[in-house]
Amino acid sequence: MTQSTAQKTEQTGQQPKPHVLNLPLGAARVDREPHSYERWLIAKLMRMAGSPPIRFRLWNGDVIEPNGQEARFVLQLTDPKALYSLVANPNLAFGDLYSAGRLDVEGELPDLMEALYRSVHAARQSWPKWLDALWRNHNPRSTGISEAKENIHHHYDLGNEFYRLWLDRAEMQYTCAYYEQPDLTLEQAQLAKLEHVCRKLRLKPGMTVVEAGCGWGGLARYMARHYGVRVHSYNISREQLAYAREEARQQKLDHLIDYVEDDYRNIEGQYDAFVSIGMLEHVGKENYPALSDLIKRSLKPDGIALLHSIGRNRPMLMNAWIEKRIFPGAYPPSIGEFMEICEHGDFSVLDVENLRLHYAQTLTHWMERFDENKDRVSEMYDEHFTRAWRMYLAGSIAAFQAGALQLFQVVFTHGDNNHLPRNRQDLYITPAAPEDV
Amino acid sequence: MTQSTAQKTEQTGQQPKPHVLNLPLGAARVDREPHSYERWLIAKLMRMAGSPPIRFRLWNGDVIEPNGQEARFVLQLTDPKALYSLVANPNLAFGDLYSAGRLDVEGELPDLMEALYRSVHAARQSWPKWLDALWRNHNPRSTGISEAKENIHHHYDLGNEFYRLWLDRAEMQYTCAYYEQPDLTLEQAQLAKLEHVCRKLRLKPGMTVVEAGCGWGGLARYMARHYGVRVHSYNISREQLAYAREEARQQKLDHLIDYVEDDYRNIEGQYDAFVSIGMLEHVGKENYPALSDLIKRSLKPDGIALLHSIGRNRPMLMNAWIEKRIFPGAYPPSIGEFMEICEHGDFSVLDVENLRLHYAQTLTHWMERFDENKDRVSEMYDEHFTRAWRMYLAGSIAAFQAGALQLFQVVFTHGDNNHLPRNRQDLYITPAAPEDV
Repeated sequence: MTQSTAQKTEQTGQQPKPHVLNLPLGAARVDREPHSYERWLIAKLMRMAGSPPIRFRLWNGDVIEPNGQEARFVLQLTDPKALYSLVANPNLAFGDLYSAGRLDVEGELPDLMEALYRSVHAARQSWPKWLDALWRNHNPRSTGISEAKENIHHHYDLGNEFYRLWLDRAEMQYTCAYYEQPDLTLEQAQLAKLEHVCRKLRLKPGMTVVEAGCGWGGLARYMARHYGVRVHSYNISREQLAYAREEARQQKLDHLIDYVEDDYRNIEGQYDAFVSIGMLEHVGKENYPALSDLIKRSLKPDGIALLHSIGRNRPMLMNAWIEKRIFPGAYPPSIGEFMEICEHGDFSVLDVENLRLHYAQTLTHWMERFDENKDRVSEMYDEHFTRAWRMYLAGSIAAFQAGALQLFQVVFTHGDNNHLPRNRQDLYITPAAPEDV
Repeated sequence: MTQSTAQKTEQTGQQPKPHVLNLPLGAARVDREPHSYERWLIAKLMRMAGSPPIRFRLWNGDVIEPNGQEARFVLQLTDPKALYSLVANPNLAFGDLYSAGRLDVEGELPDLMEALYRSVHAARQSWPKWLDALWRNHNPRSTGISEAKENIHHHYDLGNEFYRLWLDRAEMQYTCAYYEQPDLTLEQAQLAKLEHVCRKLRLKPGMTVVEAGCGWGGLARYMARHYGVRVHSYNISREQLAYAREEARQQKLDHLIDYVEDDYRNIEGQYDAFVSIGMLEHVGKENYPALSDLIKRSLKPDGIALLHSIGRNRPMLMNAWIEKRIFPGAYPPSIGEFMEICEHGDFSVLDVENLRLHYAQTLTHWMERFDENKDRVSEMYDEHFTRAWRMYLAGSIAAFQAGALQLFQVVFTHGDNNHLPRNRQDLYITPAAPEDV
């Protein structure tokens, strides 16, 4: 255990929990001949998955090429049981098997995952009902106040040290960056995102802002530093808040920022702006009316609200593996579902922007840095954890790249507010990204 | 009948139909004393309407001030029956009585209507169920192919001569303009709208565009002239198409534009862009899946679609008077309802912009010109028609001003299209409005 994780453990009073099954890697290895029905199962599985360009290498070295077409990837299985769990519940098993080293990939993992997303998306239209039911993702777990604390702790309290290895060095942003220009660095793009959000909120010095879910507090510090506003930022991750407060102190911004350790549902007061970057995914649909009521009462009559969230083109459950192993309780809404928040509160939507491909690029930058620090991560946790995290990053790149996930920024106001920005020209007058970071 | 309306009648083979009841103005005038329960009814009516700042002047000259507060407007009634129909069905009766000269207003009509919209919107939360049912707007009439033809003829075939009196002189746009700067003329703002739409579609020379509902064809000509694209524009209003074709011929753009007299549902071919400005309001919710399918098959894999429509903050029926007298079949969707189109077709929404206050300004410009030409309109039709149209324009200004109506531009693509504009910077590089028109 490193010094910093030791410190962290002391602060939170709890051991950080790597959340994948902890079997020794490749423990299930078997080398018997595959049965003929196992070959048939693979052919069937690949047909149901829309015939992605994949070849299999089985536990005994046999190669199976299910499709006539040229395979671009090889999936290697260490044992027959890996095949059976893949067939029974591919959404969950693919990630678990990869994490456990029982499934391996030749070829770029994000590219393979993207090919899978695309072929499954096309194929599932013609799945029989029983298959659709069998391979269905499960409902997300509860996001009540106490469960939310547990859900968030599970992911965000893994240790600031860990996230520092691969997030941007400017403001530790664990949300989609804004690649205003294609060649921006991760640091530039994350600062451009913060700037873009501030512009959408039309901040002016002296205004007050409330933030629901503040991560390591970078947006609040950016707002205080560049716009001279007063920010109240809520978060239930103690790890993140400790970092956020220390940073604000060091940057002499603590007189402008209150980092509050509390659930967003307990926000009090009225503000010129309500902002939430990357929290809605964790809110849970059943809490949308309450979130709407909260924004209704927290936003001044002329105030502007912005929610930034992962989303979908149409309602669909979160991938089972991600929900179970990475983001408990996560549910990315379609815009139609998102509108339940806006309609419930009689809000008026001014602006929706979709930054889907920006998230693919952000994740690609994260994964590059993660891979550079793989050994360090395995030292901090173990190799299962490292593989699980690679699967999560690669799968997320693929999902945004294939259009399975979207990234929405939605700006809205009270329905009777006529003090609106005339248009969006003011967002684009100067570059949002700093020249050098 | 003027020469041009005579020509028009000849072309369409049908008399244009002014569509308000044709009693002589003020024919119902009565001067008896009001009963005490009539005074009580007025007080009750105003309380249910949220106590707007209105004073009544009754048929015999008696003045009733239902609220303690200062009245900013006077409603004058010519007869007791006017009061009864107002109480029974205010949404429908207000416009009908005004058109018939049985209700008159002292004060600016749009301001009165806005005050009414705001006070009723606040008050209706606490209406008893029976009142909500009594004052409910009715369902819009059908928008099947044959009914749609009738619905559109009803409004848009009133005569190009009529619309020319008060629409912009640049391109006869009968949809929301884009006031990029607050002091633009109507002509500049309408051309800026066309430019803004073209930019959102990222048009390049040689591309092909299909337009559903083209009005007098201005967008198609603008696209052909400024972007060198080839446009197929569909419309079922013969009057408008005759004008559109003649204009294209005179501007030597007819080799680039096909104006097609047909229902949008019969669109054929595949295009780089699908655009529809101000038609969705007439499509009817029951036709959204078919519209979605149509866009799905008409849009090339990398194509961009844009729908521009009047909308709502939450689902709500169209005002009864507008639906009955002005726009048969009209239904402005909320974004949530709008998303039925996008979700059905697995489209990905890139951009939503709300231009609500731009429509209030557009309508204000239209009403100023309409008022300048009031006598001319009464000559062409009659005074009922003129009053009905004023009510329509004033009520629409009020609805956009009060937030009862919204104006959405929604940009979307196929869900698996990755050839997306990086961001929206390109929409704002130079002013969209021409300097002099």
